[in-house]
Amino acid sequence: MNQATIELSVNASARREADSPRSLVAEISRPLKLESGATLAPLRIAYQTYGELNADRSNAVLVCHALTADQHAANVHPVTGKPGWWSTMIGPGLPIDTNRFFVISSNVVGGCMGTTGPASTNPATGEPYGLDLPVVTIRDMVDAQAMLIDHLGIPDLFCVVGGSMGGMQVLQWAARHPDRVFAAVPIASAAKHSAQNIAFDEVGRQAITADPDWRAGRYLLEGTVPRKGLAVARMAAHITYLSEPALQRKFGRNLQDRDSRTFGFDADFQIESYLRHQGASFVERFDANSYLYVTRAMDYFDLAADHGGSLASAFLGTRTRFCVVSFTSDWLFPTEGSRQIVHALNAAAANVSFVEIETDKGHDAFLLDVPELFATTKGFIDAAAKVRGLPEAG
Amino acid sequence: MNQATIELSVNASARREADSPRSLVAEISRPLKLESGATLAPLRIAYQTYGELNADRSNAVLVCHALTADQHAANVHPVTGKPGWWSTMIGPGLPIDTNRFFVISSNVVGGCMGTTGPASTNPATGEPYGLDLPVVTIRDMVDAQAMLIDHLGIPDLFCVVGGSMGGMQVLQWAARHPDRVFAAVPIASAAKHSAQNIAFDEVGRQAITADPDWRAGRYLLEGTVPRKGLAVARMAAHITYLSEPALQRKFGRNLQDRDSRTFGFDADFQIESYLRHQGASFVERFDANSYLYVTRAMDYFDLAADHGGSLASAFLGTRTRFCVVSFTSDWLFPTEGSRQIVHALNAAAANVSFVEIETDKGHDAFLLDVPELFATTKGFIDAAAKVRGLPEAG
Repeated sequence: MNQATIELSVNASARREADSPRSLVAEISRPLKLESGATLAPLRIAYQTYGELNADRSNAVLVCHALTADQHAANVHPVTGKPGWWSTMIGPGLPIDTNRFFVISSNVVGGCMGTTGPASTNPATGEPYGLDLPVVTIRDMVDAQAMLIDHLGIPDLFCVVGGSMGGMQVLQWAARHPDRVFAAVPIASAAKHSAQNIAFDEVGRQAITADPDWRAGRYLLEGTVPRKGLAVARMAAHITYLSEPALQRKFGRNLQDRDSRTFGFDADFQIESYLRHQGASFVERFDANSYLYVTRAMDYFDLAADHGGSLASAFLGTRTRFCVVSFTSDWLFPTEGSRQIVHALNAAAANVSFVEIETDKGHDAFLLDVPELFATTKGFIDAAAKVRGLPEAG
Repeated sequence: MNQATIELSVNASARREADSPRSLVAEISRPLKLESGATLAPLRIAYQTYGELNADRSNAVLVCHALTADQHAANVHPVTGKPGWWSTMIGPGLPIDTNRFFVISSNVVGGCMGTTGPASTNPATGEPYGLDLPVVTIRDMVDAQAMLIDHLGIPDLFCVVGGSMGGMQVLQWAARHPDRVFAAVPIASAAKHSAQNIAFDEVGRQAITADPDWRAGRYLLEGTVPRKGLAVARMAAHITYLSEPALQRKFGRNLQDRDSRTFGFDADFQIESYLRHQGASFVERFDANSYLYVTRAMDYFDLAADHGGSLASAFLGTRTRFCVVSFTSDWLFPTEGSRQIVHALNAAAANVSFVEIETDKGHDAFLLDVPELFATTKGFIDAAAKVRGLPEAG
């Protein structure tokens, strides 16, 4: 890729920020060899960028999204009209400072916001892939991102950062491309999914596939949408994103209509109404088959298993600087999982700092206004930028 | 009710234990006034008994079941062919010693194993109630049980004992009929459902009502069964019954077929297969509408709210002896909820002992082989029996 292409990207980005948000798209003709053995071609990657790439291409930050997020990390979301999912973290003067860094945020393979996924057209049939899309893994997501970075002509990343499944990608990047990652920030994440994690994912998948409108995955062809199943999947998952104390604080046993139970099955409690809303709004922006694929990728993730059972082996000899972050009330990705990463990094003699942040906001804390998260990531990224020799914001 | 009727019951019970298990049924013509203001008549209560009522009718123990259990506490279940859900706790020489006590176990109002519930015939229409059954509460369940006790000619209960929703009934019994409960043992329970509890219940209800075979609750009339929705509800709930460490210990990331992921959506992991089995077997024995009603009863339960916001007020002046039990790894009904009960009982100057049992078995510990549970309940019940003046087992 030549310099002109990069400038095109940056210009496109600038136009996008001025106008309504619109994804940039990289069309990659080189086949993506998947972990399953299958290949995926052509590959389309939808992404956004924020900030400008510097002359020596040393200031790129890759932001990795979680299960149901997408490339719209710091711009208004084209479907929901809401601020990007990490607009608290990415922007001028924010921890991922767009005055200093060239920030890349791409939709994962298997996703549904423009990157090749089950709703994309299968070139073999001219119809949507549906379940004919090969199963993808976290490693496949990272390999696709690496192709995007190649496509953008960026030799290596100053920083890879993400929460939850985004953190899994961060770890996979550091393990797979140690020389292309200067600094890595896995937040509220783990090196593998636990049995409970898999269990909740499986409930979501069962809810989707139980919906007759799912049509064995062929709903796009048959003109249906498994709305109810996908909404139930979202509702169950959403509970796991919040801590019990936060639910108690926000909703407790508050009734919708104060003082009166209906003695029926309407949403009497505010928490019921809230969950129903979460389910209903989710189906407006997310594809049911993508939910199957992306949860499967998370379930399959086990970085130690990929390295002979030793997580430390995944990072031996690494020169990447790590900042591992967890939240005290996160019961989906508890601190223990982050601690295991830190122990492995220590055993691999890596440069690692670890911060467990006290909050009652649960797993979703990585997406919320948590000042200690901002201070921690900003401090780490600024220090790493100094080591990297990146100039301070002008 | 006269002595002959009691002997009939006991004889029926003896017959049942010898033959295949068969519910006893009390037909109660007196209307049950529900908390909603509606009335339920006629009322049918299906129950089992174990052991013999003594001459002065002072040795009756009422066992209260949880959400998806029933009256078959200590006999082989007629549908599943498995041992009763509390066969570890009820029997000769066990904590609820059938050599000493006359044990009564009845299916709750709203249930589906013989007691009036949504699958029962609505006398007004001659068709199954479906959603025309009035919503019932924990208080309604207890009032129905009180009618059964009246029907059996038993003036008061030596002990009321139960886990989870059974514990809610125990608390409600002690609050509503303080002079009819000598001893009370709420296990793994709470005086109210938390926001998270309600949230999980709502997911289950949404999964059921999302199933087109639910037919707005009229599936019995229309010859369908919302199997998939009910199975998803069960799977989601089942996760909450187990602790994360227990899931890790039992299943971890073990594959069904060792060493090989299928890169598909079959049940690759043992935890997936286990959950699917839990869902599939549950629909063979439980009614979807009952699931709606009984979860609703739990959600509505708030003993403090019923007493001006003070839980202690629910127990003021009580002479009942309490033994409150919780489990360290129970995250559905955490120890904190039991502690609130104990604080309220202390504030009400009640006689209360409290044991938090160390186990990794989660909420389901109350149903499992937990020696400290047996020792705790046996010790408490034996001591209470001594105070009550009941003779030791011969």
